[in-house]
Amino acid sequence: MRDKEILDFEKHRLIPVIVQDIESNEVLMLGYMNREALEKTLSTGKMHFFSRSRQRIWLKGEESGHCQFLKELYVDCDRDSLLAKVEQIKAACHKGYRSCFYQRLEGKNWKVVGKKIFEPEQVYKKEKEERWGESRE
Amino acid sequence: MRDKEILDFEKHRLIPVIVQDIESNEVLMLGYMNREALEKTLSTGKMHFFSRSRQRIWLKGEESGHCQFLKELYVDCDRDSLLAKVEQIKAACHKGYRSCFYQRLEGKNWKVVGKKIFEPEQVYKKEKEERWGESRE
Repeated sequence: MRDKEILDFEKHRLIPVIVQDIESNEVLMLGYMNREALEKTLSTGKMHFFSRSRQRIWLKGEESGHCQFLKELYVDCDRDSLLAKVEQIKAACHKGYRSCFYQRLEGKNWKVVGKKIFEPEQVYKKEKEERWGESRE
Repeated sequence: MRDKEILDFEKHRLIPVIVQDIESNEVLMLGYMNREALEKTLSTGKMHFFSRSRQRIWLKGEESGHCQFLKELYVDCDRDSLLAKVEQIKAACHKGYRSCFYQRLEGKNWKVVGKKIFEPEQVYKKEKEERWGESRE
């Protein structure tokens, strides 16, 4: 499937993508896609994004294994943002929480209200160790 | 409350804001806030956004009356996007649907899967008529 037929990247090079758990309806994260990230997402069924800080495409879960399988994709009325309903492996947030939105405003402060379900240092350290000797794309 | 204390607008002038129905958990829309829009949202309890096309602050529902009352505000791990849980009056979308995400990808086409709950022409026409003789900011 060619995304050029379904979305216009001429106006906005990067499109924000809301990622929502298809079972619980919890909002998990917000990422950005360019044309290539959308094409890879649609062709593989796994969420790919464009990292603004690293300026490259990334497969969500490429290090942690915490992939997101695309189940349904929605576009908004202006066709400049997407909503992806996904099956989330373990957790979306690299800080160890199910959702990246784990801090809620209370008074003038952000309070952690999410429950930590993994320790980032263990997951990412483990991944690094496993990659010794492996070639990476 | 001063948003400067809770969010840094120096890095990103506009922050994407996911708006979610606090009761049904349906994602209603994605908007953008600058510092002023966030301040107005927090001081009034009604969602305000910055319109990229009109380059001005707008109160959600200023024409239609379809306001959004802020109930909970979350920030993501990178502190560069927000999730607002709201009570939505009638509908979020100016096209007449409850959610702006009323089109789902099916094959290579966007298919309307949302149910239209009001006729935009009637709502916006009515508003225009009511505004005769009124001064507007």
